[in-house]
Amino acid sequence: MLELAFQPDREGADPIYRQLEHHLRDLIENRRLAAAERLPASRELAHSLGLSRNTVNLAYQALLEAGLLSARVGRGTFVSRRGAELATRAVESPPARGFAWGGLFSRRAHAVKVPGGLAAEARMGPARFDFRGGQVDVGSLPLVGLKRAYGRALERAGELAATRDPRGWLPLREALSRALVARGIACSPDEVAIVNGAQQALDLVARVLVDPGDTVVMEQPGYFGAAMAFAAAEAHVVGVGVDGDGLRTDELARILRTRRVKLVFTTPAVQSPTGVVLAPSRRRELLALADEYQVPIVEDDYDSELRYGTPPAPALKNHDAAGQVVYVGTFTKALFGGIRVGYVVASPPLLVRLALLRFSADVQTDLVSQAALADLLSSGALERHVRRVRRRYAARREALLAALARHMPEGARFREPAGGNAVWVTLPPPVDPDRLLERAREAGIAYSRGDAFFLEGWSGSSSDGSGSEHLSLSFASLDEAAIAEGIETLGRLARRTTRRKRR
Amino acid sequence: MLELAFQPDREGADPIYRQLEHHLRDLIENRRLAAAERLPASRELAHSLGLSRNTVNLAYQALLEAGLLSARVGRGTFVSRRGAELATRAVESPPARGFAWGGLFSRRAHAVKVPGGLAAEARMGPARFDFRGGQVDVGSLPLVGLKRAYGRALERAGELAATRDPRGWLPLREALSRALVARGIACSPDEVAIVNGAQQALDLVARVLVDPGDTVVMEQPGYFGAAMAFAAAEAHVVGVGVDGDGLRTDELARILRTRRVKLVFTTPAVQSPTGVVLAPSRRRELLALADEYQVPIVEDDYDSELRYGTPPAPALKNHDAAGQVVYVGTFTKALFGGIRVGYVVASPPLLVRLALLRFSADVQTDLVSQAALADLLSSGALERHVRRVRRRYAARREALLAALARHMPEGARFREPAGGNAVWVTLPPPVDPDRLLERAREAGIAYSRGDAFFLEGWSGSSSDGSGSEHLSLSFASLDEAAIAEGIETLGRLARRTTRRKRR
Repeated sequence: MLELAFQPDREGADPIYRQLEHHLRDLIENRRLAAAERLPASRELAHSLGLSRNTVNLAYQALLEAGLLSARVGRGTFVSRRGAELATRAVESPPARGFAWGGLFSRRAHAVKVPGGLAAEARMGPARFDFRGGQVDVGSLPLVGLKRAYGRALERAGELAATRDPRGWLPLREALSRALVARGIACSPDEVAIVNGAQQALDLVARVLVDPGDTVVMEQPGYFGAAMAFAAAEAHVVGVGVDGDGLRTDELARILRTRRVKLVFTTPAVQSPTGVVLAPSRRRELLALADEYQVPIVEDDYDSELRYGTPPAPALKNHDAAGQVVYVGTFTKALFGGIRVGYVVASPPLLVRLALLRFSADVQTDLVSQAALADLLSSGALERHVRRVRRRYAARREALLAALARHMPEGARFREPAGGNAVWVTLPPPVDPDRLLERAREAGIAYSRGDAFFLEGWSGSSSDGSGSEHLSLSFASLDEAAIAEGIETLGRLARRTTRRKRR
Repeated sequence: MLELAFQPDREGADPIYRQLEHHLRDLIENRRLAAAERLPASRELAHSLGLSRNTVNLAYQALLEAGLLSARVGRGTFVSRRGAELATRAVESPPARGFAWGGLFSRRAHAVKVPGGLAAEARMGPARFDFRGGQVDVGSLPLVGLKRAYGRALERAGELAATRDPRGWLPLREALSRALVARGIACSPDEVAIVNGAQQALDLVARVLVDPGDTVVMEQPGYFGAAMAFAAAEAHVVGVGVDGDGLRTDELARILRTRRVKLVFTTPAVQSPTGVVLAPSRRRELLALADEYQVPIVEDDYDSELRYGTPPAPALKNHDAAGQVVYVGTFTKALFGGIRVGYVVASPPLLVRLALLRFSADVQTDLVSQAALADLLSSGALERHVRRVRRRYAARREALLAALARHMPEGARFREPAGGNAVWVTLPPPVDPDRLLERAREAGIAYSRGDAFFLEGWSGSSSDGSGSEHLSLSFASLDEAAIAEGIETLGRLARRTTRRKRR
């Protein structure tokens, strides 16, 4: 029945359970495992493959979490409906027999994964109370200004059609370097490259600096997009804890003493996802460590425009005498994530390499959007828009904090975020995160679960290991009334959804 | 004086001369080799490093060609002005001492190179008679239609702001799958992913399928962007010859017999850069070989809209029962290269992997441009524009062919291209390609030199090894009169610029 000719590679970079997981996943995707087909019991499969039962269980568990398998109590493990859909999609297309793609994927293709929490929130579909990340307030988008800017950009289409520079359109790089000087970052246009949002900057930096197996350090909890980009470069990603003062430099020092680190990724202005600001003493320590161990720092200032209360601390890049800080910024937060324009500020030797790889990756960033953004920057329209959005978000942030204080169950912890548009909430232990997510979905509430921001298998001082006891609640797309109503419901569900005692 | 602590890695993937070249380049970029500093004579350096003199000469030669060194007869080898500029750029920024990036770059960063010919044409600057590739006829850009389409796209900004799908915007994928069915390629929107132009499709396919050292086969001469993307995946790229019937399937069969090949890259509709159409018998042979050896084919139909004369042959993807052909298309040619929207049609198991890596690479393609293109496709405006451009290009193509027939020196060969916007010309042996490029530049003429389309070190049946005896002349951006005038001058220069006999 089951084509399970699995050959573990005992010297491979991946653990055996991971290899088995990939093998099973490929069988499902290539329709060799039919929908609703029952898999062998783990004991049975372990025996026939000469593996430990634990290895098989870990592989099954990963596929259960990915939604490709489902377990039915007392009946066994089956290919799930979602697994069947993947197969169905393949069946709908003409092929009489499918080409066996499964065995052809590269190690890096196997290394990139969607974090569990992210997959869970994507499966939730549309929601009435949508607290998920990555959104903006649609109502405040500057439609008139955008139309004007894109119209002006297209009037320059002849000039744009003659432009092909992987570093980006010079007028935008010039406008940006002026804007950055105002933020305290002195740089010439030759140190600025335009990319497709912050995510591409992280991917390019990883590809230019990281060979398979190289160690990369990032905050935990941390930005899942960075973790995915580092995984795609086949990095060995090591997490460093975050507390109320931001990245724990003592942990970082311990890591740097014991192994060579290729780069440190950090979000000092507004830690993603906790919203903590990196304390001044920690900033000094981080820069001193980077100097001592000659390690590059990647500073992701993804949300530089959205700050509340006290003015932002100077960027690490401000203090970067040697040129070892790579500063990453983006317009996707101030406008919306579909306008894929971000930027990276780096020393020329690195920038030359980034630009060359970037040409090979996708030549250049969309020039119509580049020219439209240059227009929005130069005319001041972007700044006016940001001021308006900031006021609106400040009110929503207050509403969310107030509702959380009133409705969350006792023992829940959260912090005022210094910027950005989300609040990081930690649920008290009795609340069952899986059941809460399910109940919330039924009540029309969607949010980002904390395990999207934790590396698989990582355990730090502030987590039980998976991170699913945290929620990230964005206040960007809901007005104050909806925030209050949604959080009241969520709080009620959280109080009801306590973990059952296990016998 | 010279910090040349070079340690060759004799078991490394790169030959020693290449390692030395990288080392010297990094010294220049990091300002450890000052501008105008004289390098040791190759004999001297070879001795002190324990290398052969030939190894040092090859490294110097590569840096001379890259413009980072310059040789002065009787005086030695120096860091060139361009090398100095790289260093100057670094000096202009505040750092008191530069961070040593040189030692940190990954193997893939070292593997990506700009082909010699491409670097040469980029150095040429603006030109009165610009026959270089990658251009379009600026005068025929549909400005009114573009403005209308972008305006309508921005009216949907709310919807776009809520969209985050690495496969692309569903309405565009739907419009595309309808358009593709009309081209004979039956596919559902689930088999279509939107990317940032064809280049990103090639980069993603390479990343998903190729591990370092895997063999990739591509046409020689072939598209330099593909060669760069495969190099960035650290592929071992093997060239297969092209004749009047396109890719030589006999050569491909020989390669497939002797080694495992991860993918074959081809441009069957209009071979890039020669303009040859892959003959029907070759198409059958190619598909049979791919089936026999279970090798994926990447079919780059980069210029599907611009065909002249006979209607195009059906795509390989038309005959792809098993789903092993990956079809790549783009809008960057029909409009202009700054609107970064292309697409890939692939089997679901591959498409799922491409989309996941794509999310990690840069999330998604610019949604404003995606929505504008969906509008241009659905309204028929794109098709009307393509018909107009095709008529205009057909006349320019005729003018270029006529001027070449009249003015090129005896022995020059060229062929009517079946599509696209360039003619591939082979100069007779007495013409010195380097001197011609220089003289042409002085006369205000720019073109793409053939060595941009040849892999370094590759030698095939139709080439002396470097490919610089070929020119690629684009007729996209010049009107008929300018084409006639430019080619008359170029022909005169080619007749005058004959290689001097060496004693």
